[in-house]
Amino acid sequence: PDQEIKSAALKRLANQARPRGSLGRLEPAAARLASICGRLDVKLDRKTIVTCAGDHGVVEEGVSLFPSEVTAQMVYNFVQGGASINVLAAHAGARVRVADLGVSHDFDPGLDILHKKIRKGTANMATGPAMTREEAAASVEAGIGIANQLADSPGLDLLGTGDMGIGNTTASSAIIAVYSGLPLKELVGPGTGLDEQGLDLKARVIKRALDLNRPDPADPMGVLARVGGLEIGGLAGLVIGAAARQIPVVCDGLISTAGALIACELCPAAGQYIFAGHRSRETGHEYMLRHLGLTPLLDLEMRLGEGTGAALAMHILDACTRILADIKTFEEVGIENAHEG
Amino acid sequence: PDQEIKSAALKRLANQARPRGSLGRLEPAAARLASICGRLDVKLDRKTIVTCAGDHGVVEEGVSLFPSEVTAQMVYNFVQGGASINVLAAHAGARVRVADLGVSHDFDPGLDILHKKIRKGTANMATGPAMTREEAAASVEAGIGIANQLADSPGLDLLGTGDMGIGNTTASSAIIAVYSGLPLKELVGPGTGLDEQGLDLKARVIKRALDLNRPDPADPMGVLARVGGLEIGGLAGLVIGAAARQIPVVCDGLISTAGALIACELCPAAGQYIFAGHRSRETGHEYMLRHLGLTPLLDLEMRLGEGTGAALAMHILDACTRILADIKTFEEVGIENAHEG
Repeated sequence: PDQEIKSAALKRLANQARPRGSLGRLEPAAARLASICGRLDVKLDRKTIVTCAGDHGVVEEGVSLFPSEVTAQMVYNFVQGGASINVLAAHAGARVRVADLGVSHDFDPGLDILHKKIRKGTANMATGPAMTREEAAASVEAGIGIANQLADSPGLDLLGTGDMGIGNTTASSAIIAVYSGLPLKELVGPGTGLDEQGLDLKARVIKRALDLNRPDPADPMGVLARVGGLEIGGLAGLVIGAAARQIPVVCDGLISTAGALIACELCPAAGQYIFAGHRSRETGHEYMLRHLGLTPLLDLEMRLGEGTGAALAMHILDACTRILADIKTFEEVGIENAHEG
Repeated sequence: PDQEIKSAALKRLANQARPRGSLGRLEPAAARLASICGRLDVKLDRKTIVTCAGDHGVVEEGVSLFPSEVTAQMVYNFVQGGASINVLAAHAGARVRVADLGVSHDFDPGLDILHKKIRKGTANMATGPAMTREEAAASVEAGIGIANQLADSPGLDLLGTGDMGIGNTTASSAIIAVYSGLPLKELVGPGTGLDEQGLDLKARVIKRALDLNRPDPADPMGVLARVGGLEIGGLAGLVIGAAARQIPVVCDGLISTAGALIACELCPAAGQYIFAGHRSRETGHEYMLRHLGLTPLLDLEMRLGEGTGAALAMHILDACTRILADIKTFEEVGIENAHEG
């Protein structure tokens, strides 16, 4: 990010014909977008949301209301355009690309998704590592490749991240448990709709996975391999890839932010390119946001995933670009600024 | 609002191919929009934000950083299209109409604003009532008239409310003081940017106005007359007028919500048509929202007015209409719903 552009942006915002600071959190977000894109008149015309999909062996422990088959079924739903992310991405003016990092299903190679399958689902992390270190690295590299591919063609001004994977709130909660050190009771959320009993089971399963695999927070690739997921690796790679291309990234909720967290642990500079789209109702998400030092743009008590929170937040980021470029200054409209008096 | 449509909307939302309740606060908002508009496939194509302007005699007590002249200067800025509300309304696909309810300035009758001036600014409420009861009623009627006029031509699917008036956070804070009974220290915010000393003065001036005028919360028109404002009356009328035409209204921050509060005190049924666009940083706003039983859609620490929070929230309301109409159900996409299992 270009710090001179950031200063110029903040100066222009402070001189606009309105009370100083009155556009609240839009102002620092606008300045950050300008610094990332290297100009005051930022245009986020080419938006893509990449929804990374993968399955989770830990589902056999009974941590989700839905069976693993639903991951593949939802991929077909995304391709057909009837899912939540299709609707909200269309509303945001964004394309949706679905990436298969590790769904337990053989998709026809002609299916219009990004075919990046590393393996058919992770292993059950409650009985051993979710995947090998090589597989984890391959999932991150796949995400970096997708970001590069989109940036090359059709071009990319703003990347949104999203996820699909039955069982992936369990893996994501394990990751934030590693980095926050907080008890699982505080971190585990209902995912697709667990009741109290289901939450207890989920916490116990994660505890077992952590005790067994002993992930080391200083080794993020190891954390991803031991208790993560293939789509989470892909999401981490998307963030790193976009950051390397100087493209802002807006993250969705728990799972996308787990990917962003791994990305920032692997590559701290990537954090400067991330915007938190929304605050998920999943409790662990708040701790991820704190870890990353991010304040979410929206807080609508959503907990859907797929990239839906990122899609909704894209409108706010577009608004940030417009306020910076288009609101006139006191000087331009001939009104005396109280702060200059 | 049509309660049968609301039930049908909630049922459809619950059957969509995603975890139940996962779209959080978008879901009840979508159902409420459907019930107001009387259909599941709501289209909010024709959006207008009405920015009501008026001046305040109490400014002579030193409660604002800006002089009253800035109200008229900003009206010209709105007409020329360079103000914050122009930029954010354009981004929301909304028209802006500026209404002069009581600016202390003679506008050319040919100026493209809604000419509804009741008087040139209120009197100083710290030394007597802000206006007469008849003037207060006329300001409310003017707002009702504007809503009807817009609904007749060009047609109106969603009304946003906004304000401009140097000194109007003082009047709005007085109104919420009347209805909350809370001490002014808790209610008074910095407006255009007061420091601690300025806040103390503002609280003392409001206290004086309340002690002198003794507004009775059971008499909302009296409250408006004694410690309100001409644009606040207009904003109350807009809400009542839109509600009478079954048109949803999205309110901006402190001043617009003060108008909505007066509207609901005059006509409680109007509350069913109101959406709170955002949570203002002005402290009194939170108490107004509580009084009205509203949860704001956005919380971006904004405190600008003009209708900017309403404009940003319009995108969220549009999203609500799309999720209800366009996301497919489990049955439609052939996936088994966990909740039915």
